[in-house]
Amino acid sequence: MSSLKEYLEKCRVTVDATLDELLPTANDRPGSIHELMRYTMFAGGKRIRPALILAANEACGGEFGNRDARYAGAAVEMLHTFSLIHDDLPCMDDDDFRRGKPTAHKAFNEGLAVLGGDALCIFAYEVLARTGNLKIIEEMSKALGTSGMIGGQVVDIESEGKPVTLETVKYIHDNKTAALMRASIVIGAQLANADDETIAKLEEYGMAIGLAFQVIDDILDITSTTEVLGKDAGSDLERGKATWPALTSLEESKRYAHELTAKAKECVAFLGDKAVQLVGIADYLENRID
Amino acid sequence: MSSLKEYLEKCRVTVDATLDELLPTANDRPGSIHELMRYTMFAGGKRIRPALILAANEACGGEFGNRDARYAGAAVEMLHTFSLIHDDLPCMDDDDFRRGKPTAHKAFNEGLAVLGGDALCIFAYEVLARTGNLKIIEEMSKALGTSGMIGGQVVDIESEGKPVTLETVKYIHDNKTAALMRASIVIGAQLANADDETIAKLEEYGMAIGLAFQVIDDILDITSTTEVLGKDAGSDLERGKATWPALTSLEESKRYAHELTAKAKECVAFLGDKAVQLVGIADYLENRID
Repeated sequence: MSSLKEYLEKCRVTVDATLDELLPTANDRPGSIHELMRYTMFAGGKRIRPALILAANEACGGEFGNRDARYAGAAVEMLHTFSLIHDDLPCMDDDDFRRGKPTAHKAFNEGLAVLGGDALCIFAYEVLARTGNLKIIEEMSKALGTSGMIGGQVVDIESEGKPVTLETVKYIHDNKTAALMRASIVIGAQLANADDETIAKLEEYGMAIGLAFQVIDDILDITSTTEVLGKDAGSDLERGKATWPALTSLEESKRYAHELTAKAKECVAFLGDKAVQLVGIADYLENRID
Repeated sequence: MSSLKEYLEKCRVTVDATLDELLPTANDRPGSIHELMRYTMFAGGKRIRPALILAANEACGGEFGNRDARYAGAAVEMLHTFSLIHDDLPCMDDDDFRRGKPTAHKAFNEGLAVLGGDALCIFAYEVLARTGNLKIIEEMSKALGTSGMIGGQVVDIESEGKPVTLETVKYIHDNKTAALMRASIVIGAQLANADDETIAKLEEYGMAIGLAFQVIDDILDITSTTEVLGKDAGSDLERGKATWPALTSLEESKRYAHELTAKAKECVAFLGDKAVQLVGIADYLENRID
């Protein structure tokens, strides 16, 4: 586990340096929005999605931290952050804290938060385009759009305070969370020119760890504290959000997350030693308690 | 002029059919956001930016309405609409009407309007990627980001109610409005594989008509009525917005718009007969009074 933590730290340092290299600074006009973009990007995320890109890329034969993988890693983190900025807005989840710091609309203002999210989204596509790989742009768009992340967010908001089925919760988790993690894995593999069969297995791995990740998030919202989470604990319950434990139980949710993790590891077993980081990440996500 | 109106109508019909073909429907889950996307996309815009793509493409030897030009036309209109939806939000311009209809957050709700704008932006990139042309994705991103449209919107909002210089108004107009029109022209030419020299001249044309377009918008905000504009007339003044006539005069603004239009037409004179629609559009934009 300690070597996995070192690997994740190496990924974090790599993607942070790339973000710092790519993002405009407060000295570039207009300064305010660039300040907001850097504020949100460097508020201390774990960089899981970039790590998935770097690890999948390496597992498929790419050299660790090659330029295209770094660029895609920086882009996916910008896209993830864009979605968080908008989700936190008063007209959506209305959250005051994120990663232990005031959310963008609290630290700046609402209008600039909307535009800062937009700008991160647009800049991410510019960075993706610089890799010269069109397939990853299509892959990313599908994962982000109404048949992916945004679709999940819409159904999540529309389900608040209403009785929902487990099927709906799965739809929300698969789309709002797992889709972007799946895309990260696929993009890492695409940038290493992996064959279709390899990509299909990695895609399955990505969906499984993505769903496990969100089920565990649901569990942590109940069992953890605001201090540990860096965001409001218990906020799902308070808001009448549809969660896995609410529709099953804590025990069943843990069992399911474990089953998904085992399945994910099976999917990458064919890669042998090259899958070591992917296996480690699957275990890490299941066991993550900061 | 009448043949130009027919040409613009042909462009409008072409891009509307493409949008209808591409956009998901309310039957696709989640229905609400697809309904919002179609509501905003078919609220009656003039489709000027798609017409610029189609006309530039044709001027550079492309067949009218070829698939890639249509796709780029549909994408630029989605990106323009995405920016309008977000600009109209209560935390920004707080507008209730757009193109004569209730704005997205009025017809639906604020959260869905934020997400619907996001979804149009993301889907537009997916459609751009389908043309297989990476250059147009980079071009579009530069025009939309903080060194383009969003940068202009930030400075516009931050200048409200404050004394500003003509240089600032020009910065806002060049970025908030002209950048996307310039990009439309360049993208149309890129999709027809135009050479660099041709693209440079067309780019100058695009910047000139884009700035003229916004100067005339400023004039119309003073001289026109809400009914004709389809949005609140006099809202710039009321809000203390920096406009060209406010810093010069109505007369000087008209003279400047005319000068820009003449310059634009000069830029495309080397194309001879092939520039007929581009010349017509420049005149149309100067003289537009619906």
